[in-house]
Amino acid sequence: MTSPAPFAEIWRGPFLESVHSGHAVICDGAGEIIEAWGDPTATVLPRSSSKMIQALPLIRSGAAKAHGLGTEHLALACASHNGAAIHIDRVGVWMDQLGLNDDAFRCGPQQSRDKDIREAQIRAHETPCQIHNNCSGKHAGFLTLAQHLGAGPEYVDPDHPVQRACLDAFEDLTGETSPGYGIDGCSAPNPAASLHGVARAMARFATAPEGSAEAQLHEAMRLHPELVAGEGRACTELMRATGGKVALKTGAEGFFIAIWPERGIGIALKAACGTTRAAEAAITALLVRLGALEAEHPATLKRINAPITNWRGIQTGVLKPAAGLL
Amino acid sequence: MTSPAPFAEIWRGPFLESVHSGHAVICDGAGEIIEAWGDPTATVLPRSSSKMIQALPLIRSGAAKAHGLGTEHLALACASHNGAAIHIDRVGVWMDQLGLNDDAFRCGPQQSRDKDIREAQIRAHETPCQIHNNCSGKHAGFLTLAQHLGAGPEYVDPDHPVQRACLDAFEDLTGETSPGYGIDGCSAPNPAASLHGVARAMARFATAPEGSAEAQLHEAMRLHPELVAGEGRACTELMRATGGKVALKTGAEGFFIAIWPERGIGIALKAACGTTRAAEAAITALLVRLGALEAEHPATLKRINAPITNWRGIQTGVLKPAAGLL
Repeated sequence: MTSPAPFAEIWRGPFLESVHSGHAVICDGAGEIIEAWGDPTATVLPRSSSKMIQALPLIRSGAAKAHGLGTEHLALACASHNGAAIHIDRVGVWMDQLGLNDDAFRCGPQQSRDKDIREAQIRAHETPCQIHNNCSGKHAGFLTLAQHLGAGPEYVDPDHPVQRACLDAFEDLTGETSPGYGIDGCSAPNPAASLHGVARAMARFATAPEGSAEAQLHEAMRLHPELVAGEGRACTELMRATGGKVALKTGAEGFFIAIWPERGIGIALKAACGTTRAAEAAITALLVRLGALEAEHPATLKRINAPITNWRGIQTGVLKPAAGLL
Repeated sequence: MTSPAPFAEIWRGPFLESVHSGHAVICDGAGEIIEAWGDPTATVLPRSSSKMIQALPLIRSGAAKAHGLGTEHLALACASHNGAAIHIDRVGVWMDQLGLNDDAFRCGPQQSRDKDIREAQIRAHETPCQIHNNCSGKHAGFLTLAQHLGAGPEYVDPDHPVQRACLDAFEDLTGETSPGYGIDGCSAPNPAASLHGVARAMARFATAPEGSAEAQLHEAMRLHPELVAGEGRACTELMRATGGKVALKTGAEGFFIAIWPERGIGIALKAACGTTRAAEAAITALLVRLGALEAEHPATLKRINAPITNWRGIQTGVLKPAAGLL
């Protein structure tokens, strides 16, 4: 296996304090590698970066149409959201329309990342619900599909029709037989593939014909970047910074993907150490490299060549992307 | 430069999801390397792992004695504390005795890591003060020394007598001329050294004669593990698990040190990617290797071979230490 390639450097004063490395693949619509760093054959769990693949059966089955889902629903199905009001209000209405309450979720309760919601809950002595979980939009999608299929309530079981459909879509898009799965933070199975396979899946999204399930999903993400993550987050800010041209999605343990329909390319990358700052720096650097993102855009400069500041707001260091990615 | 050595592996289901590597040195009282992993010559910023070195001038100058500081004060001077009531109450009394208020600090305000304090502040619509900063004990020590020396209020300036004394102590203990410094999260200068130099400094603490400044500090840390970090934290739980035999201190960006007086050895390690979980796994593995910690102790099993659980409490993976450290 090829060693991971440099991703990012953390400098403090004149010293290189920490280093990050990883694997990255840029793929074309034919599924061929345009460019790669590290090991494209590395077996990876794409985590939340596979949400748009897991949302394909929702559309392909006819469930989305039957339930009248719009672009906001589709963006939320692909989201790792902040649990802000704009997210939980919409997921709440969606669950009402399904006739379901918070107990139907199987994602588990998670404290909202949104300061207003979090502090309001603390002041009210309330504990977080499952709807606050960053994956509640994906799970509302799973529940919609389960209802459409007339399947049972344990929709995160690997043998449940919902998860079997997700695995079929995953193997279809990656062009690989998945070697197995891990259980994700939200309790859903997360199938493994090669990093090349995940990049191939993203390139297939990028080259899918207008009106296809794939196109509907990346269009929804690009149309509603604030629903896919939230204010301040990399997915949201970088999608906006590309002028909505590129769909972006982070995943836990240092994953990131990009779908660029205009160019027909997909990107998948994984920071070997699983660190978010490294994955964000790497995807930002690659988007600058490809011309999707301006090097001087504030959203870019927040993630590469980003000042590191301390509790008094003094700059103490800088995060630099590896030269090889730019 | 030698590549970093394996530190830890993150497994999810049957898949190796993320990997960590780093550098580690075990040193004896003569300053010689007993055993090393990765590159012992790596230049490092020990961050908060150097707090006991930065506390030496407080004792050596006579300031601690003149101000009647006890073992609790000395433990707090070496602490990266949670900002819990046990920490801020004691630092508050100390500041009162100095005749100083929160404005005298130069560490900056930081939200308390302690749930009770944090939520009480949110409910009262209060913002964090500088006393809640994890370094407020170190800074109370700096202020005590500044007062004793009759020096000015800008005690974090690199040219201030307090910081000049800290640099002298650092170079004395590491046995090296520091190549420079970075500014730490708390705004104090943090001198650089080789990793070997930091391990040598810790071995010198371990072999310092009874009653020396070095011995007073590691004794205070081992006597009050709850003041050095706080409930749930690695330093506190692991010091307790060694039966108070080993003094332990974490540092930002994946640093950890150990001082074991009974054996006269010091350890310093740095996770290359700067990740806390990797540094905690590595120090735990080395303490098991050396016989300071039982492999089956709950505090050990929380950091190596530790189950990774999700929002529903389901085990989804495990953090395994690298075999080479055990």
